[in-house]
Amino acid sequence: MLPTPASGSFDAGVHRFAVRVYFEDTDLTGVVYHANYLRYMERARSDMLLLVGIDQAGQLAAGEGYWTVADIAIAYKRPARMGEDLIVESRVTRVRAAATVMSQAIVRGTETLTEAVVTAAWLDRHGRPQRQLAAWATAFEALRRQASSEI
Amino acid sequence: MLPTPASGSFDAGVHRFAVRVYFEDTDLTGVVYHANYLRYMERARSDMLLLVGIDQAGQLAAGEGYWTVADIAIAYKRPARMGEDLIVESRVTRVRAAATVMSQAIVRGTETLTEAVVTAAWLDRHGRPQRQLAAWATAFEALRRQASSEI
Amino acid sequence: MLPTPASGSFDAGVHRFAVRVYFEDTDLTGVVYHANYLRYMERARSDMLLLVGIDQAGQLAAGEGYWTVADIAIAYKRPARMGEDLIVESRVTRVRAAATVMSQAIVRGTETLTEAVVTAAWLDRHGRPQRQLAAWATAFEALRRQASSEI
Amino acid sequence: MLPTPASGSFDAGVHRFAVRVYFEDTDLTGVVYHANYLRYMERARSDMLLLVGIDQAGQLAAGEGYWTVADIAIAYKRPARMGEDLIVESRVTRVRAAATVMSQAIVRGTETLTEAVVTAAWLDRHGRPQRQLAAWATAFEALRRQASSEI
Repeated sequence: MLPTPASGSFDAGVHRFAVRVYFEDTDLTGVVYHANYLRYMERARSDMLLLVGIDQAGQLAAGEGYWTVADIAIAYKRPARMGEDLIVESRVTRVRAAATVMSQAIVRGTETLTEAVVTAAWLDRHGRPQRQLAAWATAFEALRRQASSEI
Repeated sequence: MLPTPASGSFDAGVHRFAVRVYFEDTDLTGVVYHANYLRYMERARSDMLLLVGIDQAGQLAAGEGYWTVADIAIAYKRPARMGEDLIVESRVTRVRAAATVMSQAIVRGTETLTEAVVTAAWLDRHGRPQRQLAAWATAFEALRRQASSEI
Repeated sequence: MLPTPASGSFDAGVHRFAVRVYFEDTDLTGVVYHANYLRYMERARSDMLLLVGIDQAGQLAAGEGYWTVADIAIAYKRPARMGEDLIVESRVTRVRAAATVMSQAIVRGTETLTEAVVTAAWLDRHGRPQRQLAAWATAFEALRRQASSEI
Repeated sequence: MLPTPASGSFDAGVHRFAVRVYFEDTDLTGVVYHANYLRYMERARSDMLLLVGIDQAGQLAAGEGYWTVADIAIAYKRPARMGEDLIVESRVTRVRAAATVMSQAIVRGTETLTEAVVTAAWLDRHGRPQRQLAAWATAFEALRRQASSEI
């Protein structure tokens, strides 16, 4: 049986995605280079979108548009190290006409390493904001409600 | 005569550093991948620190400590594209005991593409915050004053 | 239950490791940037070494040494694209005193996208070649025999 | 006066391009991550192509095609470290109908750190090999002759 790549899943509106730290992710200070946590978070968002039914590669190839990061606020609390297994937790916190806001955390066991708020905007092929599909907004809104009532 | 790598300079407290966009920086949407703007900003900060007299490689090798990113808030306004020449503008906005806060913008001619506020923290070899050298704080504070009176 | 990161396995001496292509891996030509296939191959080798009992992070932290790439010859045959699931196949082809040579291929279903021969050298903490542990050489040699009799 | 990014130049058919090592380029072994030397070499080739009159971004946008790496053989001899200034030397060694072969070395002062032979292929927008423009072949051939008589 062939091995499969990491794939995330939802639990009560929270998307969880696993990442392992490799040499490529670290820098000479011995820990993960700060910009690379953004790559981990993007992998998790891409996986989440796929589970929501959004085929980013297909949308882009069909000229229908693409998701882009409009802004990020990220706080680095503890470093991750080579060989560690991390989980990226993603929660939808707000659904707007042309954007979806998520809260993402990278955790190692019970420790939170990094926390971010990310606004993902849906653009047309020319890079202009466009209204997201009703089906997507509905799916994101359902996830938001589930995650916010999680406590 | 041998070519030299990009090197920045100060003008009235504002550090400017040039970057050219290469294939490695872009993704399939045709523009620079969002996490890579953080790499540009880090190159500019490293260059700025060098001009301020901080030899990061030497400090790290001597076990004296290293600068790390404690948090970033970044807004993406316009995309950068393959082959473009960009300028990273960096201004010190606050000098704290164990950290220096900077405002950084990536501009292309008169257009601002990306804006960020970055807190760089000075850590000891074990990754714990430590007070920055008096000479650094003085130099950063002088830059902050120059840049804030720049109008 | 928490998701887990990709993890490889051996079958008749051949190590297989799964990779999914993300935005970060592509460039503006729409396919994976050539240098990033090397990152996929390195992830697979790190996973293989772990299965063989080599804890690279631990060895490095203990000052015992680290594996490095001494040379690579790589041929790019077909491109990989965003969202695709790939398998990295790795075979030990030669075991030397201070190095292990591997043949690696990146495949998508029945198609071979990229093929490489990689020499990984075992260095001491000062970056000088050193004899690999007998247990490692034995394990690599066993894998080599299994893979070569695979036909 | 604004700073400018690194830009290469030709001397007797040899293209030289400067690179400085930043945090992003290193890994936890303290030296440049092996795949990142390929990024340095690609920057140098992009710069060389620009000087030869090939506007890769423009060609791609116009749907005329793009250059891709068909194969690389690279040997790592000495590591590069954070903060070092390196020169990428590129020589055309063979001009084919749909490809140009180059020999590239990364040097630090009088030391050669890395040597590679790279075949760059010219593809049409569908990723199929196509004959390179006569003007390009002529320019590459002139460089090849200059470089080979350099001794």
